[in-house]
Amino acid sequence: MRTTRQLSLGGVKIGGGAPVSIQSMTNTDTNDAEATLAQIRELAAAGCQIVRCAVPTIRTLDAFERICAESPLPVVADVHFDHRIAVGALERGAACVRVNPGNLRGEAEAREVARTAARLGKPVRVGVNGGSLNREIAARLGKTAQAMVESAEYYIRIFEEEGCRALKVSLKSSDLRITLEACRMFAARSDIPLHIGLTEAGPVSSGIVKSSVAIGTLLLDGIGETIRVSLTAPPVEEIYAAQRILEAVGLRQASPEIISCPTCGRTHGDMLSLVAQVEREVRRIQSSGKRIALRKIAVMGCEVNGPGEASDADVGIACSAHGGILFKHGEKVATLEKAELLSAMIRELEDATLR
Amino acid sequence: MRTTRQLSLGGVKIGGGAPVSIQSMTNTDTNDAEATLAQIRELAAAGCQIVRCAVPTIRTLDAFERICAESPLPVVADVHFDHRIAVGALERGAACVRVNPGNLRGEAEAREVARTAARLGKPVRVGVNGGSLNREIAARLGKTAQAMVESAEYYIRIFEEEGCRALKVSLKSSDLRITLEACRMFAARSDIPLHIGLTEAGPVSSGIVKSSVAIGTLLLDGIGETIRVSLTAPPVEEIYAAQRILEAVGLRQASPEIISCPTCGRTHGDMLSLVAQVEREVRRIQSSGKRIALRKIAVMGCEVNGPGEASDADVGIACSAHGGILFKHGEKVATLEKAELLSAMIRELEDATLR
Repeated sequence: MRTTRQLSLGGVKIGGGAPVSIQSMTNTDTNDAEATLAQIRELAAAGCQIVRCAVPTIRTLDAFERICAESPLPVVADVHFDHRIAVGALERGAACVRVNPGNLRGEAEAREVARTAARLGKPVRVGVNGGSLNREIAARLGKTAQAMVESAEYYIRIFEEEGCRALKVSLKSSDLRITLEACRMFAARSDIPLHIGLTEAGPVSSGIVKSSVAIGTLLLDGIGETIRVSLTAPPVEEIYAAQRILEAVGLRQASPEIISCPTCGRTHGDMLSLVAQVEREVRRIQSSGKRIALRKIAVMGCEVNGPGEASDADVGIACSAHGGILFKHGEKVATLEKAELLSAMIRELEDATLR
Repeated sequence: MRTTRQLSLGGVKIGGGAPVSIQSMTNTDTNDAEATLAQIRELAAAGCQIVRCAVPTIRTLDAFERICAESPLPVVADVHFDHRIAVGALERGAACVRVNPGNLRGEAEAREVARTAARLGKPVRVGVNGGSLNREIAARLGKTAQAMVESAEYYIRIFEEEGCRALKVSLKSSDLRITLEACRMFAARSDIPLHIGLTEAGPVSSGIVKSSVAIGTLLLDGIGETIRVSLTAPPVEEIYAAQRILEAVGLRQASPEIISCPTCGRTHGDMLSLVAQVEREVRRIQSSGKRIALRKIAVMGCEVNGPGEASDADVGIACSAHGGILFKHGEKVATLEKAELLSAMIRELEDATLR
């Protein structure tokens, strides 16, 4: 894990050893404060920690101000082209603004945003992507990772010269390898926290795969202080995907990890529905606000993959030809009828439940 | 990319610079040859290149022999515990057997499998996972990556001593970090191709994320010659997920990559359905056996993310407040009515279509 400076985004700590936080972005019309707030509440309930809203025009600031005042989450204003919107958003309640300085009118405008953020003690996300490189740097280096990093450093200098040091940086390309290279290069050269994710990740099925590869690879390298999974899907799907990525790399344990064998010709019983039922029970218990104090649970289709391969599960069930077994840490603790498997697992889940 | 020895698995080359191949496993009862063959044909149509079938008992070998004879794909026999099943499978048509030598009765039995494979000129997959470590090594090193690698090397020596050098190795733990560490350690020490994947990847939603992170991270490191995504789901889902992972890391281009912006408050038009329609058209054209000679196409929700951020797309459409534009390589080539956007994209797809 690299050492990063810490900033506070409306109370959510980013960098400096804070847990990796999860962001999303509303896709309602920001002018419709009611609809946007409803979506933010839904995102918060799903586990989102920071939310971003597009503020496309000065006129949108009225609704945006109300959203900031009533939002249960800190709100980041997403601003392009017009620095006056960024300044206005900061003055009217944004916890942070995201600008791509490369698409503001010029350097003077970027400096004005920086001075406003510094005066109000609010952080700024400096975004660099394929579409907003510094022009001179892009001309010299092309659309490369090096150009992205040098563009970011160029803009960081401007912000820091104006006294704005609470910065996070995003480096995003729709090319996964360039994104990875840019983030690694930047991480090796700077202590500024990185916001990671892929931009324009495409349809949800391939978007989840691309984001998992990109974000997962960086997190495993210790890079990334806050993440957003971009999906062309309802925003709450982004939160679920982000949580799964953090769980996959071992950075978060929202719920017991469920391991199950891929079904094969040895499988006894209807594994797919058994796994789905166990998953549903875990969610049911957790949605009542309880926590299940188990690290791993297993649902296995046969004795081959049962206690042996899932010996690191706290509790597991494995089907056999005529029934099944309950096992704990690799040891069989009970032989069961087929019809008892699910209820035995539910009993174990509830026994391990804490308020 | 590390240099690996090449083996031929029923005609599919693995290692030695061959493209990364995609595998799956049937989840029908192997005794039901008809159902298993139907599933293999479905897997082949989806792009699967190698299929594995569980052969749990000697009696299953009759059906297995018929499956091998009629399968459109090379068939790997998945055998546990009883080496006679592995020997029989090789003699009766398996293109390869997978054994975890650690769960065979003993070393003599592993040697018999090795001699049979060598005599028939067929490859063997040597599997090592949390459940089948060499006992002495596990006692010394625990359930660590080092123990997995040393177990693999111990068994490889046995197979090579019997003249069986056409080997691939899998090192799988349900712990993602241990899997990555073991594969990297093995890759640095051996020229034997690696079969990569996670075992017991769990429910489909989190399984895809975990597999994408694990397999994607290794492939980006140049590790992995053949892959299987294990999902508790219909096997063809494993093929789709595997293809998306190979596409994400740039190792395969099955179809034009569709990039689309995550929707936000600036989005004009119904992006989600537009992206889905474009995806459907791409599939429709390709399912007729044609290839679309485009690398990237874009569907963008507004002028901010349109031609600029998607300037590396060969063709794109971007919505605006009252209609939209068609762009190529970042340059606007036409202004369109809203209703014309999809048809303009379809025309571009068809213009780029080859038989």
